[in-house]
Amino acid sequence: MNDHAPNSWEARAEAHSLYGFTDLPSVRERGTVVITHGEGPYIVDTNGKRYLDANSGLWNMVAGFDHKGLAEAAKAQYDRFPGYHAFFGRMSDQTVALSEKLIEVSPYPRGKVFYTNSGSEANDTMVKMLWFMNRAEDRPQATKILTRWNGYHGVTAISASMTGKPYNSVFGLPLPGFLHLTCPHYWRFGHEGETEAQFTARLAAELEEVIAREGADTIAGFFAEPVMGAGGVIPPSAGYFQAIQPILRKHNIPLIADEVICGFGRTGNVWGSQTYDFVPDAIISSKALTAGYFPMGAVILGPEMTDRLQAAIDPIEEFPHGFTASGHPVGCAVALKAIDVVLNEGLLDMVRAGAPRMETGLREIAKHPNIGELRGIGYMWALEAVQDRATKTPFAGNLSVSERIANTCTDHGLICRPLGQGIVLCPAFTLTDAQMDEMFAKLDAALKQVFADLA
Amino acid sequence: MNDHAPNSWEARAEAHSLYGFTDLPSVRERGTVVITHGEGPYIVDTNGKRYLDANSGLWNMVAGFDHKGLAEAAKAQYDRFPGYHAFFGRMSDQTVALSEKLIEVSPYPRGKVFYTNSGSEANDTMVKMLWFMNRAEDRPQATKILTRWNGYHGVTAISASMTGKPYNSVFGLPLPGFLHLTCPHYWRFGHEGETEAQFTARLAAELEEVIAREGADTIAGFFAEPVMGAGGVIPPSAGYFQAIQPILRKHNIPLIADEVICGFGRTGNVWGSQTYDFVPDAIISSKALTAGYFPMGAVILGPEMTDRLQAAIDPIEEFPHGFTASGHPVGCAVALKAIDVVLNEGLLDMVRAGAPRMETGLREIAKHPNIGELRGIGYMWALEAVQDRATKTPFAGNLSVSERIANTCTDHGLICRPLGQGIVLCPAFTLTDAQMDEMFAKLDAALKQVFADLA
Repeated sequence: MNDHAPNSWEARAEAHSLYGFTDLPSVRERGTVVITHGEGPYIVDTNGKRYLDANSGLWNMVAGFDHKGLAEAAKAQYDRFPGYHAFFGRMSDQTVALSEKLIEVSPYPRGKVFYTNSGSEANDTMVKMLWFMNRAEDRPQATKILTRWNGYHGVTAISASMTGKPYNSVFGLPLPGFLHLTCPHYWRFGHEGETEAQFTARLAAELEEVIAREGADTIAGFFAEPVMGAGGVIPPSAGYFQAIQPILRKHNIPLIADEVICGFGRTGNVWGSQTYDFVPDAIISSKALTAGYFPMGAVILGPEMTDRLQAAIDPIEEFPHGFTASGHPVGCAVALKAIDVVLNEGLLDMVRAGAPRMETGLREIAKHPNIGELRGIGYMWALEAVQDRATKTPFAGNLSVSERIANTCTDHGLICRPLGQGIVLCPAFTLTDAQMDEMFAKLDAALKQVFADLA
Repeated sequence: MNDHAPNSWEARAEAHSLYGFTDLPSVRERGTVVITHGEGPYIVDTNGKRYLDANSGLWNMVAGFDHKGLAEAAKAQYDRFPGYHAFFGRMSDQTVALSEKLIEVSPYPRGKVFYTNSGSEANDTMVKMLWFMNRAEDRPQATKILTRWNGYHGVTAISASMTGKPYNSVFGLPLPGFLHLTCPHYWRFGHEGETEAQFTARLAAELEEVIAREGADTIAGFFAEPVMGAGGVIPPSAGYFQAIQPILRKHNIPLIADEVICGFGRTGNVWGSQTYDFVPDAIISSKALTAGYFPMGAVILGPEMTDRLQAAIDPIEEFPHGFTASGHPVGCAVALKAIDVVLNEGLLDMVRAGAPRMETGLREIAKHPNIGELRGIGYMWALEAVQDRATKTPFAGNLSVSERIANTCTDHGLICRPLGQGIVLCPAFTLTDAQMDEMFAKLDAALKQVFADLA
């Protein structure tokens, strides 16, 4: 039972702050963990307890919690120019430089960038851009948005409508016109006797059917994470994007890659779409874009989308959209540094070098009979708990198996994330071998303890 | 004509960045203004040109562009803990402290705070909270949102739907269920021979009619800025909120104050709702919350809304909503300092002391026959240009009168904002008398020049 003193940090947190995405029975029983500072990939709470954060914050603190270069970049910009907007034909020099850099590291020979404060806002903005272009092109009926079950695209009412998670029904979402296709998770959704290639072909056929049923001219765009992140780390089935993209092209439906989690190194390349060998029509970026040191999102439009948007803007002489902090100079300075740190200071190389080691270690842990699947790539992995591996039967929901595992890990000083009945590991790119071994050891111990308790 | 060299800042800006809320003919003719740094309320561009920014960025840089204390607060937190989230029952100590402070400075004896990265996200979040509560209370049909024409609430598809500006039609917005009532601008919308009290009574009657027509049980909430900001600085007609609030109460419709612009001093009190003597059921905050030094928004729920939300969460054990950077430790440290600077380091006092001087100076300028109305309060004012003051006839739209005034001001080193045919002045709270006089002189000269050209 949670009986913290009235002036404790825990009691103060509970008195005034609303908890988002938090299992409240866990908080009531265990209390809030109030964090004061970080050391590399570790965080430290108000009681001095130290945790290896195997989630790197929320996938975003890829350079750890005390990266000197990133802090210096932010601090230097605070001394130079601590805030401005990008409205009315004015913007900071940092904003100009970041747009240039983002197009340089994008898959596009040319393109344009629009800034937001989050991935949610970036997806919401992209939807507005599509609606705007289509109306300008005399296709006002082309409003529908296709995404996939278990896809995660954010929490504004629009980006939550894109998100394919059942919990959004508590808000009355998705709004009409947001359609979710089958999640490309072969292990879970493949039919009995179906090969992975057949599964992929079935999902492509489903896309054709949905387009035929809805009418291609009613669909504004298809959004997909290269690897689904908050849906539980789900790499696409083999050949998925190669099967999907030609269908979308045939029907003139843009493919937008939500690279909020995959972008800037998580899969072992700058973009997840590189890893899965496709070039989307536009990219949504956030999270590692600033290594978590500043709230920022970006819509990166390829050449065709740039031209379509510009053609839509020209007759009305203004794009009536923008956030107060769009292109904030400190955020842009931080992002410029973060990109440099990931690409040129070895972080991307560390993911490439460390990924096989991570996979090997997790595969060892995944031998436990209550682990049904290990899946992932680069530095994003999930272990799926099952009551019965052969039948893939999950544990009973009221056992809260993944929360138990995550809470046990927390007790042992390891933070990992429960997602459904999976446990997600997505550490900082800076993880040393010793820190990776600590992650393996603590996770393994927690899993064994919880599975033994449930046996 | 804009013929900047290919490697100039101006050309680089245009090559890669999308312009939001920007008059593109002006940019094409004049080029982008790329800003390198600031000095007090001034900004300086890449050509060394200095501008007094009478818009304090976008209403938000209330302490100017080089406030040492704010920069120090940000820098100290970057050294201490440069990023975290507020999910899974974990949050930073700064987040806990800011929530406590926000409830302390709110009109509420108790309440709870939810963090976002912008005012747009905060309004979007509040709408989701209302939909969630109503579904939990077995009123899933209570989804409609009431706002007013010329109200500005943001740019996510939901907050843009709340915004009462015709430009949102280019996106196919508002979405269904977002209803806009008459703007409480007596000078513009009062009928011939109607007193201000009669005008206010008419708007109250309209609210009763809309509620009766739509059904009170279909309405989730009424959102209002105490003074409309981006709609053109429109203080409510006398007695407006006193007429509106009892009607909303009678029908159990929450009144949410969008304090994104008014909050933290702009009207001469901490909250605009204080200035207009009402206590809303919830407050949306952003902008001055961090003095523009960090992207942040907050939903501040009063006691009743807190209890309703908690009751809705309890059965599902989790509130499935939250942004990656919700409650970012640097943002919270900056906000704690910004609140301290405004409340305890004299900024609020400066607004109170300076407001009569500002009004007197602007009233002198407003004697020009082409100014139809001066309106405002505290440090937010607008001058409305008219071709004919007696008939309140605006200039022809193709003359772009307010853009001409704003561009002429820019030439003279003063930044002010064109809104419709109005010119908005909302300077930093730190403005000295000499800087205020410079603003008056440059504005007066620009107005006279443009009106002479158009005569």
